[in-house]
Amino acid sequence: MPETYQIFPVGVVHKIEEATWIEIFEPYADALLGLKGFSHILVFFWFHENDTADRRKTLRVHPRKDQKNPLTGVFGTHSPLRPNLIGLTLCKIKSIRGRRIQIEDIDAFDGTPVIDIKCYIPGSPAESDIRLPDWV
Amino acid sequence: MPETYQIFPVGVVHKIEEATWIEIFEPYADALLGLKGFSHILVFFWFHENDTADRRKTLRVHPRKDQKNPLTGVFGTHSPLRPNLIGLTLCKIKSIRGRRIQIEDIDAFDGTPVIDIKCYIPGSPAESDIRLPDWV
Repeated sequence: MPETYQIFPVGVVHKIEEATWIEIFEPYADALLGLKGFSHILVFFWFHENDTADRRKTLRVHPRKDQKNPLTGVFGTHSPLRPNLIGLTLCKIKSIRGRRIQIEDIDAFDGTPVIDIKCYIPGSPAESDIRLPDWV
Repeated sequence: MPETYQIFPVGVVHKIEEATWIEIFEPYADALLGLKGFSHILVFFWFHENDTADRRKTLRVHPRKDQKNPLTGVFGTHSPLRPNLIGLTLCKIKSIRGRRIQIEDIDAFDGTPVIDIKCYIPGSPAESDIRLPDWV
């Protein structure tokens, strides 16, 4: 197994006043065909501000930065500190115009690199008997 | 914005006969603390067999490899051909023993590199008024 893989930014998050949108970079514009048929997308982004060797070694955190929550492995959280700095948010589309996807909200900052987008299809066959720890 | 980011495999998918599990590599074992409180995880993996410059340039596909489905941008699909080869499956946990997460099923092959795991918490605030295209 290779030791590393390469990820390229395919777009960027913009947040200006009330508006939030994703700008898809020109080389990837063709990947947007048909996205208008969906109301929701999964947006994958990169926690670029944490991209240091040291921060990527963080393996345990107090969820939601609350010391009252039990120390938890990052795989049991959505912490922005993790070995691979992948963030994921389900976003509702407001409009798509050209390479600009306007969305209702995203759990990412202005300037955050977007690394993938997938359509959102609810009702995974795995989704039954959901169980969560108390801190959630 | 940097041109690339580095992703490291943190584990690997094993499928042998009826059993399916994720082996987390030793350096990341500490990131599993507390995962047992969850019934489900989001497993992020790398479509490593498609990791060529040429395949990563694929921007449009017929969803589900069915020519009857309309040509669609990969961002409107879950195609394994896409600029960044990130796969995502919601998996139900059967058991966790040491660095081995036994799961019910995953939409990935034996040997697929795992790049991240996040706990699954249903009920995103964005999830309302879902709309899908006809081919779904």
